[in-house]
Amino acid sequence: MDYIKVPHLIEEKSFEIITEELGDKTFPEEIGKIIKRVIHTTADFQYADITVISPDAIASAKKAIKSGAHIVTDTKMAMSGINKARLLKYKGEVHCYISDEDVAKKAKEQGITRAMAAMEKAIGDEKNKIFVIGNAPTALFKLKQFIEEGKVKPDLVVGVPVGFVGAAESKEAFEKLNVPYIVTRGRKGGSTVAAAIVNAILYML
Amino acid sequence: MDYIKVPHLIEEKSFEIITEELGDKTFPEEIGKIIKRVIHTTADFQYADITVISPDAIASAKKAIKSGAHIVTDTKMAMSGINKARLLKYKGEVHCYISDEDVAKKAKEQGITRAMAAMEKAIGDEKNKIFVIGNAPTALFKLKQFIEEGKVKPDLVVGVPVGFVGAAESKEAFEKLNVPYIVTRGRKGGSTVAAAIVNAILYML
Repeated sequence: MDYIKVPHLIEEKSFEIITEELGDKTFPEEIGKIIKRVIHTTADFQYADITVISPDAIASAKKAIKSGAHIVTDTKMAMSGINKARLLKYKGEVHCYISDEDVAKKAKEQGITRAMAAMEKAIGDEKNKIFVIGNAPTALFKLKQFIEEGKVKPDLVVGVPVGFVGAAESKEAFEKLNVPYIVTRGRKGGSTVAAAIVNAILYML
Repeated sequence: MDYIKVPHLIEEKSFEIITEELGDKTFPEEIGKIIKRVIHTTADFQYADITVISPDAIASAKKAIKSGAHIVTDTKMAMSGINKARLLKYKGEVHCYISDEDVAKKAKEQGITRAMAAMEKAIGDEKNKIFVIGNAPTALFKLKQFIEEGKVKPDLVVGVPVGFVGAAESKEAFEKLNVPYIVTRGRKGGSTVAAAIVNAILYML
């Protein structure tokens, strides 16, 4: 059977198909790059309608990455999907604290999720400027609280938890905050979506 | 803001909502567990219609895992999403060869994708009995070739590459093979879907 075996040609062809199928639905260049990469990752065109990017989000994220910002993710999966080699060019690193022993201990003691305890640990390091949450609404709620309390001022929040309990609400709450954000409205999202958004920004640089 | 903070309650409630919204669409118990976990991971009910499970797939996979089968994934993301602690109870391990130096070298020499070269490495270890492909159609095509040549006889193939070039075709080809398989028809799928399917089976044991 004949099939394309060259990765960059596969990706190029995929983006052509996506652009074609989006038809009249066009976007400003950088916003389009993010939305198309999310569709590329999910094969789900609904993301063209539910992905919301605050006006300052892309510029703020690019500036932060160029200045060596570190990225925090809520899951190992999201961390795993981010192009860390590309980030390292700017001296950036990705951290995920969910499996740390002190996080597990704190979560147990306080009766909260590990995702929440991990966010608390994340804001303890000033280098962490970009927060990427693809799974846990509780992490996004906790991050919102820290922002409102003035404990952290992220350069970008990618808030795309997927799910049926709290996900939509956690993202809706974010759209009212004065912080650069990218969210997916409603239930959809996930770790692959989170990583795709970060990579789309990395590939703009 | 009030929200559920106990992970197992969040999951329980999510599965209740999914079952309710599936309505008249019911499944045999174990098939339902897989489909619902995929929907839980994607918030996308289309998976109820496109997920195809061969009649022998679940029993074969359970038997293999209980016998200590190892799992191979095409991406680090899929590996990252699989519950490795649970698998280790049965002495199973997860491997992903995509970043191995010898794989990169072979791919370059032969002008094939790293995903294809990684599959070639994977079939070299007899302990690898479950093949999980969530991203690369080329890996699934290559695996199909090895099965047809009699070089490997998997106890389960989870074939759920996502995408616009080759993904649908790579999965369609699998439905004609005499091997236990779980696929998602069409373009949809991905690393999170792949991991959800494996975890659903692990949680049945």
